[in-house]
Amino acid sequence: MLVAKVIGNVWSTKKLDSLHALRLLFVQPLDRKLKPAGEVLLAADEIGAGDDELVIITLGTPAMQAIKRDTPVPVDAVVVGIVDSFEMFEDAK
Amino acid sequence: MLVAKVIGNVWSTKKLDSLHALRLLFVQPLDRKLKPAGEVLLAADEIGAGDDELVIITLGTPAMQAIKRDTPVPVDAVVVGIVDSFEMFEDAK
Amino acid sequence: MLVAKVIGNVWSTKKLDSLHALRLLFVQPLDRKLKPAGEVLLAADEIGAGDDELVIITLGTPAMQAIKRDTPVPVDAVVVGIVDSFEMFEDAK
Amino acid sequence: MLVAKVIGNVWSTKKLDSLHALRLLFVQPLDRKLKPAGEVLLAADEIGAGDDELVIITLGTPAMQAIKRDTPVPVDAVVVGIVDSFEMFEDAK
Amino acid sequence: MLVAKVIGNVWSTKKLDSLHALRLLFVQPLDRKLKPAGEVLLAADEIGAGDDELVIITLGTPAMQAIKRDTPVPVDAVVVGIVDSFEMFEDAK
Repeated sequence: MLVAKVIGNVWSTKKLDSLHALRLLFVQPLDRKLKPAGEVLLAADEIGAGDDELVIITLGTPAMQAIKRDTPVPVDAVVVGIVDSFEMFEDAK
Repeated sequence: MLVAKVIGNVWSTKKLDSLHALRLLFVQPLDRKLKPAGEVLLAADEIGAGDDELVIITLGTPAMQAIKRDTPVPVDAVVVGIVDSFEMFEDAK
Repeated sequence: MLVAKVIGNVWSTKKLDSLHALRLLFVQPLDRKLKPAGEVLLAADEIGAGDDELVIITLGTPAMQAIKRDTPVPVDAVVVGIVDSFEMFEDAK
Repeated sequence: MLVAKVIGNVWSTKKLDSLHALRLLFVQPLDRKLKPAGEVLLAADEIGAGDDELVIITLGTPAMQAIKRDTPVPVDAVVVGIVDSFEMFEDAK
Repeated sequence: MLVAKVIGNVWSTKKLDSLHALRLLFVQPLDRKLKPAGEVLLAADEIGAGDDELVIITLGTPAMQAIKRDTPVPVDAVVVGIVDSFEMFEDAK
């Protein structure tokens, strides 16, 4: 999983039916210093993450498990939690 | 998922039967400024995305879920939606 | 999927039984200008791609769907088609 | 799999029910010299890895297999072992 | 799949039961010139690859298919063959 920051929304009307009513967020993955690292992703969100919140993102097939519908939903990134707090033990480069 | 721009088509006659009549697009993944980021991909499209359109791409096994046929189709990238609009909350580097 | 060029063969005698008689090609992924981009891969081929041909490669679990045998074959890259032609709409950097 | 060092913890209260009571660690992937290589990940841990310990991380769908619950858990990285020792045969660049 | 060189071993006592008695090798992925390319991985081996041997590695969920046990084994990289010989047709940069 990755820690990422919510940085935007995207809207799509013409899309697969299986994605109906699914909220899609732009999220920026972060490094251990919480600086942007790597490219922005689109992640589905059913938890209700807000702007600028730190979230936990699951990628790939496991992300599909996080969206419970009658049929599998073709998403490859999902918000699975909102970060309350964290600690880093070590800061070596 | 990624936001990408449709930049081309590819045609293949000699291919697996399971890919029969499946439209394949070249798409360029974009960064948060909508500039090209990373290498071009081939994505299957059943939505009908047009040249230069911004699309949402799902990668990996979840992409297979997006193509409904009698047997699983061996694709690893699919257009799942066309972007209507988006907003970015933050632009920090 | 990726567009790649066939650049070589690899032979292996001591291998898993499930890979028996499966042709393995070195393929070089290409960018939008058809220049090499990223590292060479080994891809299974049942289509019969030839030296220097441009091929379409599916990666990951979907690649397993492309090899039809009695049991799943542990491959993560497969040639799913040979490129006839293509067009690129745009060439922006 | 990757060898990584445990460098922190993250806590999340508002998360998917399927992640209930699952410990999430920040881990830093290491290169062959055991120097940091690539970005930090979040990995689920049911083994009980401690601060600064070297661990073995499995990524992707196989990681889901490592967490045994009634339903699949949407994680894409899991601690599957703690490193006792290792040897490197060669050190060529 | 990737061609890689076996460069070391790792031992782990405290690990998931599902990994019991599974040999884990450090492998270095190689480029088309057989030079190291990218970071070292840990791969499970049931073929019996030796030090410095060139091996074929399957990554991701397909790797799980290569380890036959009663339950799925959470590995994401497996040695599926040992390279006998290979040829490269082209050497363009």
